[in-house]
Amino acid sequence: MLPFANITIIGLGLIGSSIAHAIRANMSAARITGYDQDPAVRARVLELGFCDDVTDSPGAAVTDADLVMLCVPVGAIAATAKELAEDLPESAVISDVGSSKESVLNALTDALPGARIIPAHPVAGTEHSGPDAGFATLFDGRWCILTPPDNADQADLERVKAFWEKMGANIEIMDARHHDLVLAVTSHLPHLIAYTIVGTASDLEDVTRSEVIKYSAGGFRDFTRIAASDPTMWRDVFMSNKDAVLEMLQRFSEDLTALQRAIRWDKGDELFDLFTKTRAIRRRIIEEGQDDAAPDFGRHHE
Amino acid sequence: MLPFANITIIGLGLIGSSIAHAIRANMSAARITGYDQDPAVRARVLELGFCDDVTDSPGAAVTDADLVMLCVPVGAIAATAKELAEDLPESAVISDVGSSKESVLNALTDALPGARIIPAHPVAGTEHSGPDAGFATLFDGRWCILTPPDNADQADLERVKAFWEKMGANIEIMDARHHDLVLAVTSHLPHLIAYTIVGTASDLEDVTRSEVIKYSAGGFRDFTRIAASDPTMWRDVFMSNKDAVLEMLQRFSEDLTALQRAIRWDKGDELFDLFTKTRAIRRRIIEEGQDDAAPDFGRHHE
Repeated sequence: MLPFANITIIGLGLIGSSIAHAIRANMSAARITGYDQDPAVRARVLELGFCDDVTDSPGAAVTDADLVMLCVPVGAIAATAKELAEDLPESAVISDVGSSKESVLNALTDALPGARIIPAHPVAGTEHSGPDAGFATLFDGRWCILTPPDNADQADLERVKAFWEKMGANIEIMDARHHDLVLAVTSHLPHLIAYTIVGTASDLEDVTRSEVIKYSAGGFRDFTRIAASDPTMWRDVFMSNKDAVLEMLQRFSEDLTALQRAIRWDKGDELFDLFTKTRAIRRRIIEEGQDDAAPDFGRHHE
Repeated sequence: MLPFANITIIGLGLIGSSIAHAIRANMSAARITGYDQDPAVRARVLELGFCDDVTDSPGAAVTDADLVMLCVPVGAIAATAKELAEDLPESAVISDVGSSKESVLNALTDALPGARIIPAHPVAGTEHSGPDAGFATLFDGRWCILTPPDNADQADLERVKAFWEKMGANIEIMDARHHDLVLAVTSHLPHLIAYTIVGTASDLEDVTRSEVIKYSAGGFRDFTRIAASDPTMWRDVFMSNKDAVLEMLQRFSEDLTALQRAIRWDKGDELFDLFTKTRAIRRRIIEEGQDDAAPDFGRHHE
């Protein structure tokens, strides 16, 4: 049994296109309608063929839907929801894939009063963007967090849960506010720091940019991957999860200052103790299947 | 023609054992003598069989050497050099693999006056440690930076250069001080920041450690890999390259404060501009073969 038969995806970038591929792979009987505000993306999606239909407006995309997935940057959720409000069937469940959830829930509740809203966040991604970047196994074994409002219909929640389980994801249900705090530390702060350090490195006077690139295998390149993520998406994440991000940033800065002081005053033991503790966390991530222990992440050494 | 026929490796961890494997693979006629101060490591190396000989003292390891590679943490270089000083043949070239070079050059010059010193730094590694972690292709296509003192013998330099070329590395020759600045930004600062953020995440009250691990695929796990590197090695790197690390840390903190301010005051354009710029750097790293562009670093999606 399919949890949804007619699925509409609004926004056909990395996540939207991966969802389409994953529906094709795991729920092949479902009909997929797509819309993207960029006409070039719509044309490309028609070429790639992973949607049954591509429409010219968000309204036309949702008229027959029983599930509408908003896969647009978080900052565009409110406007997109308003655009399709008139055409959204009463029976349709509306969901999204945004990386911050309290602001999305508020935006959807405001724009679509009375709609069946079940926000979601699949914790998966790559540094690539656009409709060519999607692939069917992106969500395999990854977590998808659902943050239903207090008054959500239990049956709607179960259907969205079943949908993501069929896509290969593990499901967790969480309060939107707690989600935003957890993601601030596991995702938003790492991205912010990666963007910062790549920026710092490119502004030096005594070290050239080509030296930075040449010797990036010493650690720097691990940061550049996430600092290559979609700029619009990430701008919106930081704007929409401002309080939690600022709180985590403050804690991080305090910890960094403590390490800076330890280096300045030659307190090697303090460094050693921290470095030993952080190793244990890495081990647990590998044990729980959230990363690959292959040396150097399977980067090729021929 | 082999640049060196009798090679001694002191310190048989990830880098020392990888050098031994790479010598076997690329200069099979060379004889490899090994020493490690840890008797358990020596026993394990005998089992693994990648050295022709394993001795019980650094002195005994170097008596017949024409190349001595010190693969110990930077903080142990001075003591190790003193231990083998009496037995080091006048004709032997002494080199190392340390991640900071000015302090190593000073330590070697003090401990071994008149010795043929050619410090080196292969910019390659994984997060794994110990004699089981080594593999022959670790240096393939990676950079190896040589930082010879002003009075170095040109022939010695050429031999060390030839040695690393046979190991598959690309060679760059640089002043020790400049090396330390370049590596402070491409390697030392990224490691310091990764250690810090992993520490910050494990000290939260409102987010549990298992939540951090569970949702690490959102970006955090990229930091945990380098925060799992050898604690002793990294403590020594920060202690021995203190000035350059503190300078880079100061710049990074200023840049991070500017971003923090942009988030607090809703200046989305400033974020967007930085995030666009950092993307270009990623592209160049991939173009220059210092990383793999496969989605998600070749992590398995089945």
